[in-house]
Amino acid sequence: MRPVGIHTGWWRYPGAYADANFNFAHLRRFAQTLERGCFDAFFMADHLAVLNMPVAALRRSATVTSFEPLTLLAALSAVTERIGLVATASTTFEAPYHIARRFASLDHLSRGRAGWNVVTTANPDAALNFGLEEHVEHGARYRRAREFLDVVTGLWDSWADDAFLRDAESGLFFDPARLHVLDHKGPHFSVRGPLNIARPVQGWPVIVQAGASEAGRQLAAETAEVVFAAGGRIEDARAFYADVKARLDRLGRPRDELKILPGALVVVGGTDAEAREKKALLDSLVHPDSGLASLSIALGHDASGFDLDAPLPDIPETNASKSSRDRVLALARRENLTVRQLAERAGSYGGLAFVGTPRRIADEMEAWLAAEACDGFNIMFHTVPEGLDAFVDTVVPELQRRGLFRTAYEGKTLRDHLGLRRPGNRFFPRPRAAT
Amino acid sequence: MRPVGIHTGWWRYPGAYADANFNFAHLRRFAQTLERGCFDAFFMADHLAVLNMPVAALRRSATVTSFEPLTLLAALSAVTERIGLVATASTTFEAPYHIARRFASLDHLSRGRAGWNVVTTANPDAALNFGLEEHVEHGARYRRAREFLDVVTGLWDSWADDAFLRDAESGLFFDPARLHVLDHKGPHFSVRGPLNIARPVQGWPVIVQAGASEAGRQLAAETAEVVFAAGGRIEDARAFYADVKARLDRLGRPRDELKILPGALVVVGGTDAEAREKKALLDSLVHPDSGLASLSIALGHDASGFDLDAPLPDIPETNASKSSRDRVLALARRENLTVRQLAERAGSYGGLAFVGTPRRIADEMEAWLAAEACDGFNIMFHTVPEGLDAFVDTVVPELQRRGLFRTAYEGKTLRDHLGLRRPGNRFFPRPRAAT
Repeated sequence: MRPVGIHTGWWRYPGAYADANFNFAHLRRFAQTLERGCFDAFFMADHLAVLNMPVAALRRSATVTSFEPLTLLAALSAVTERIGLVATASTTFEAPYHIARRFASLDHLSRGRAGWNVVTTANPDAALNFGLEEHVEHGARYRRAREFLDVVTGLWDSWADDAFLRDAESGLFFDPARLHVLDHKGPHFSVRGPLNIARPVQGWPVIVQAGASEAGRQLAAETAEVVFAAGGRIEDARAFYADVKARLDRLGRPRDELKILPGALVVVGGTDAEAREKKALLDSLVHPDSGLASLSIALGHDASGFDLDAPLPDIPETNASKSSRDRVLALARRENLTVRQLAERAGSYGGLAFVGTPRRIADEMEAWLAAEACDGFNIMFHTVPEGLDAFVDTVVPELQRRGLFRTAYEGKTLRDHLGLRRPGNRFFPRPRAAT
Repeated sequence: MRPVGIHTGWWRYPGAYADANFNFAHLRRFAQTLERGCFDAFFMADHLAVLNMPVAALRRSATVTSFEPLTLLAALSAVTERIGLVATASTTFEAPYHIARRFASLDHLSRGRAGWNVVTTANPDAALNFGLEEHVEHGARYRRAREFLDVVTGLWDSWADDAFLRDAESGLFFDPARLHVLDHKGPHFSVRGPLNIARPVQGWPVIVQAGASEAGRQLAAETAEVVFAAGGRIEDARAFYADVKARLDRLGRPRDELKILPGALVVVGGTDAEAREKKALLDSLVHPDSGLASLSIALGHDASGFDLDAPLPDIPETNASKSSRDRVLALARRENLTVRQLAERAGSYGGLAFVGTPRRIADEMEAWLAAEACDGFNIMFHTVPEGLDAFVDTVVPELQRRGLFRTAYEGKTLRDHLGLRRPGNRFFPRPRAAT
């Protein structure tokens, strides 16, 4: 939900809360509504700069003012009870000690509901906000990310779960034998530890990733528990699913230790025709400036000088996201689209969309699950509050009727909701011996 | 309130919530109680490592597991209405873009109640958690802090207060003429901007500092709006107050633009004797290990090998806090104390304490205010919940009876509570011209 609607037209849609992206009262209501709908988690993406688009397009973007995810999710943790809280944080522009600490803090504040979407940051403008002249090269970002994860998970294991005695009589607050000093020294990081916060309630917050490049898939297979996949066509999703699960097999990880959740825009209507009309209205609210800017971001290359009515020219490789560039190139080839058509698709969200009655949407979701194209979905609404309320009030009950979705939370933590095991502590595999 | 009690014996005191430092339900109740008592703010200090003491003492410390301040205060912002929320964050181990963004986010989430205690981090062990072999030298830390503040305040001014149009009809979300790209290039930082969050509700969150060295006082006089002073003896406090206010005069800043608030431990009793007994009981709960460790931290030098019954030997200067070292040396000289006696004082909190009936405490506070030794106090409780509840229920009403303290919040923001003006935007001094 950053932005609260993925489609760049959401905030202009009739009835939309145009300030929803930056209004805590609205966001609180959305999180509470999702919790009423038994959602696993509320996910907040992030950027470490305003979007890298020309000001002609930027001025049309509702994302330019947004809450910082960890502060927002901490505030939401105090007004929700069960829903998971997942935030993006960058391994390229953060320090592992800070990240380990903040997610541990969110996990304790929420009593076990935190998740971390690990990103290496594709927006090249972020580098300029952190003292770098040029963005870090794609492969180097992933090597750093791998070590970053080792450090963070090592810091989370600083304290045994039973380290804290709080024995007022003897004056012992913790048992020093149950404290581990990490003393990590690697190519990118030197971090002594220990972390100054107890081991998270979930052992580790849930590790989420969204990389789809070769390096991103491999990092996910090695370390992630959830992958936010790109959606798109079901045959592509099945191939992605098969590829990532096969990587798990090769690593000896059980397949159900990683859940693949493609992003899916939903537009609910009383009839299929009404839903399609809503989608068409939404698409009509995308300004051409925004479409071309979205296309430029997806390509990692400025498209504003391209001939709108010609096919896409050759685009050199850049340091930005490889997977989003490849998706555009494949789409352009497959459907033989002009730059203008690609820009329209880019601005109006070109990925997986479920548009129709609650019954049709449930049918399509069921088909995706049955085809091993995914383990669930990362739902995005066409506008707020309408799209969110309609999904919770009409699609969720339909999924529940079919036995495809829970009717109440069965567990308390995000790991419980997702069916993920609590990781053991690598330094303290066993509880303290009785004394 | 990090730790929730400054005295190292607080958690062993009869009736103490020994886990209070790390229990959100308790901290929520404390913040709400302070709000009932019309406190300006809830302040959470911070460390970027566990305390730098030998494990024999560390294992007696209730601070080893604590929430990260910005996540905690964000959570508290959702369950309080008026009380200010002040967090420590380090200019030595953070990036200005992240800090500007997080405090702006907290300020928006709390609708104008955020404050930032700017520290350069005295604990040398923090450096080891951030890839540095040695701690940054004291003077270099302060030069970096000065530039850091320029960058952060510049980023806060990225957007004019009236930048956001959210005009659904035209599709314009903001007015590009009301956006400033900072493009800062200095000796320590290169930060382009703009910040990806609207200007804080307060313009800038309130700037707090606690440095007492020459460099710290000058930084405070140039940039701070609140100084957390050391307390101690009233004559020292008066000299400090006069020195800092004179620096404001020389800089052409009005004296009331900076509030000086010494830390004060309060121990309330039904009689003065009862309060003194409480204090004595509290002091008796400090383990000698903890005392020696606290002394070592204050000196920036390991005192564990010193002869306990001899006077303090010569201590070389280090990169740690100069002001706390100087306070110990002055105390040792003035009262001719042995190492053992200094350790007892260090572990049991050697600074300003108000011990007695509500009436005596109010008398002493009034005397401090009348003597121009301070503008208010940074109150610390001898234990929780007892000390906090007693203060709000008995001392606050006594101060209100005397007209020394508000009986209800008059304003909505932390700046309102403190009587501080809202800073203008350096890039947008005037509102948008009518069109």
